[in-house]
Amino acid sequence: MGKNRLEAFSDGVIAIIITIMVLELKVPHADTLAALRPLLPIFLNYVLSFVYLGIYWNNHHHMLHTVQHVRGGILWANLHLLFWLSLIPFVTAWMGENHFAAAPTALYGVILLMAAFAYWILQRTIIAAQGRDSLLKAAVGRDLKGKLSPLLYLAAIPAAFFEQWIADGIYVLVALLWLVPDRRIERAFKNQDN
Amino acid sequence: MGKNRLEAFSDGVIAIIITIMVLELKVPHADTLAALRPLLPIFLNYVLSFVYLGIYWNNHHHMLHTVQHVRGGILWANLHLLFWLSLIPFVTAWMGENHFAAAPTALYGVILLMAAFAYWILQRTIIAAQGRDSLLKAAVGRDLKGKLSPLLYLAAIPAAFFEQWIADGIYVLVALLWLVPDRRIERAFKNQDN
Amino acid sequence: MGKNRLEAFSDGVIAIIITIMVLELKVPHADTLAALRPLLPIFLNYVLSFVYLGIYWNNHHHMLHTVQHVRGGILWANLHLLFWLSLIPFVTAWMGENHFAAAPTALYGVILLMAAFAYWILQRTIIAAQGRDSLLKAAVGRDLKGKLSPLLYLAAIPAAFFEQWIADGIYVLVALLWLVPDRRIERAFKNQDN
Amino acid sequence: MGKNRLEAFSDGVIAIIITIMVLELKVPHADTLAALRPLLPIFLNYVLSFVYLGIYWNNHHHMLHTVQHVRGGILWANLHLLFWLSLIPFVTAWMGENHFAAAPTALYGVILLMAAFAYWILQRTIIAAQGRDSLLKAAVGRDLKGKLSPLLYLAAIPAAFFEQWIADGIYVLVALLWLVPDRRIERAFKNQDN
Repeated sequence: MGKNRLEAFSDGVIAIIITIMVLELKVPHADTLAALRPLLPIFLNYVLSFVYLGIYWNNHHHMLHTVQHVRGGILWANLHLLFWLSLIPFVTAWMGENHFAAAPTALYGVILLMAAFAYWILQRTIIAAQGRDSLLKAAVGRDLKGKLSPLLYLAAIPAAFFEQWIADGIYVLVALLWLVPDRRIERAFKNQDN
Repeated sequence: MGKNRLEAFSDGVIAIIITIMVLELKVPHADTLAALRPLLPIFLNYVLSFVYLGIYWNNHHHMLHTVQHVRGGILWANLHLLFWLSLIPFVTAWMGENHFAAAPTALYGVILLMAAFAYWILQRTIIAAQGRDSLLKAAVGRDLKGKLSPLLYLAAIPAAFFEQWIADGIYVLVALLWLVPDRRIERAFKNQDN
Repeated sequence: MGKNRLEAFSDGVIAIIITIMVLELKVPHADTLAALRPLLPIFLNYVLSFVYLGIYWNNHHHMLHTVQHVRGGILWANLHLLFWLSLIPFVTAWMGENHFAAAPTALYGVILLMAAFAYWILQRTIIAAQGRDSLLKAAVGRDLKGKLSPLLYLAAIPAAFFEQWIADGIYVLVALLWLVPDRRIERAFKNQDN
Repeated sequence: MGKNRLEAFSDGVIAIIITIMVLELKVPHADTLAALRPLLPIFLNYVLSFVYLGIYWNNHHHMLHTVQHVRGGILWANLHLLFWLSLIPFVTAWMGENHFAAAPTALYGVILLMAAFAYWILQRTIIAAQGRDSLLKAAVGRDLKGKLSPLLYLAAIPAAFFEQWIADGIYVLVALLWLVPDRRIERAFKNQDN
């Protein structure tokens, strides 16, 4: 069974999630530049969530590149990931409207943690389906980033209740960590060819 | 005539339906975790509808896999299915906002019943187009689940007016029934190859 | 230049238009079946617009099937069609909320007329690009439906100001006219093969 | 690595952006044609932004046509472009609701400028990846339009604070400039074949 529809459906859902967030940038009634100031935290949060969704789409793109056959388990693990990603616009809006208050900031970490967990499940499901010579397994390797990110989210969630800027800083840090180009999968393909 | 656009269009509509539902999770004004409590029924209902739409997408994916040529009848039977699915966000929001009250719970069952009916029509249309050696017909077999689900919805609709939790329980039960992996179509492909 | 992206983009836009309309079915606050009654005209109008968009998607699907190469002119003629279709949710909502009052009903006809006109331009652009042996030209033939529909819309627009039900009846009639399966393009392909 | 998903994802995002804008055409409560008059500036602005997004989709379509392999840099340059495009519905709504007031008109120019800048970065990234015999580089040539547009936006932004109609005129002018068919890439493909 092909993977085209799985990719197309995931692309569609992520494209909608990424675009729906912009609806939370409510148009101000006044027509002055000053009227934009209250939107600044919402805007910054939009940027952060946009980057996170971009990272997920990017990694999803690479991960599915190693997949040949899609089975029921992969379909549901993928839907599970999309479920947690679909909650990002909600928590982004809540966080932005409350100027990065404690509870929304912590919930942001929870959603990111659940999404990371869902991504990990999808990765395990694909590796299990590929069997012993799993290309994805070779590509992922020790998966340092994948193991570090949830730990950082776990630290950020309680930190939000003490000093929310620490939590926000951690979210930005993890995003930067993933923005650094990750050549593992490309390298694994090359190694396979040699 | 190819089926790519039919799949792409259906994927697009289902992706939008599944994502639009999240817009009903209205961002609370307060920034406390307690402010999330009123959202709990809406959230649970979102999960249920997400799973139902996932099941439909999954089954739709499998069903179209057996299709080679798309004719006008199949196009319209497919649009008819998408129509009923497109009402799920509305009834999900109504049900969630009213804490699973009787009328919304019953209407939820009506929409699920109509979607199941539309799915059955699409299945019949494809089988008719495939003729005597229909691969889909062989895959569907006696279609126990497909016959049981509408009966359960039919029981849930009046039950909602007496004790709505019975209806809710039935909806969860049917979803679980379908979540159990369904290997019929994959098996039918294998049988054909032998 | 391929036509895949043109199809994918058009599918995406039409899928979003068709689904966005459902957002106009505002969730009633009361939890009784009676609370649904005011939604009835909006719902009926949603059905009508859903069918119209389904017809456009269906015909668009068939028309592009005859296209091999996509040039700039076709891209823009296609965007022009999508523009008018994108206004259908707005006018559907306006018409539904005002119980099919005169002005919204007339505007509905204007949008349908402009969409039909844009479709005709797209058809002419494709035929011109295909040159003398245009498969689409052969398929379209005398294009009775395509010529009759705008005339009927033209009659419905002023009629809306006298007796809006005549206009509504015309819109339903035109939709039914197109729902009757149109085998012209399928036949043209067959004739070409012989 | 293929480019199909990059195209599909970009198509999805642009399709949603273009369609979400129509949600800003709030349905008037009155049912008279006069009730539409306040919507006129929003509508005109919708047309302008629709044309701009159409131009971007069109040029994006052509540009990616020259791409064979997609690397991480191109993925992120593309997401960066989509980010700025995703802000067009917000600024379009702000501009339309305030009847083309100074600040919104200037911000519209800023977003267009940033989108043009992001497009240029994407173009440079693709050319760099293609190396010395870059087909895109040959196609773009001196890129007069690409250099002129940002200069015009830069002129429009301060002009908005003196006489906003000058800024609006510049935005319309740049759109018209790009609407004129651009045969550079098609020509470059032809030259390559000879």
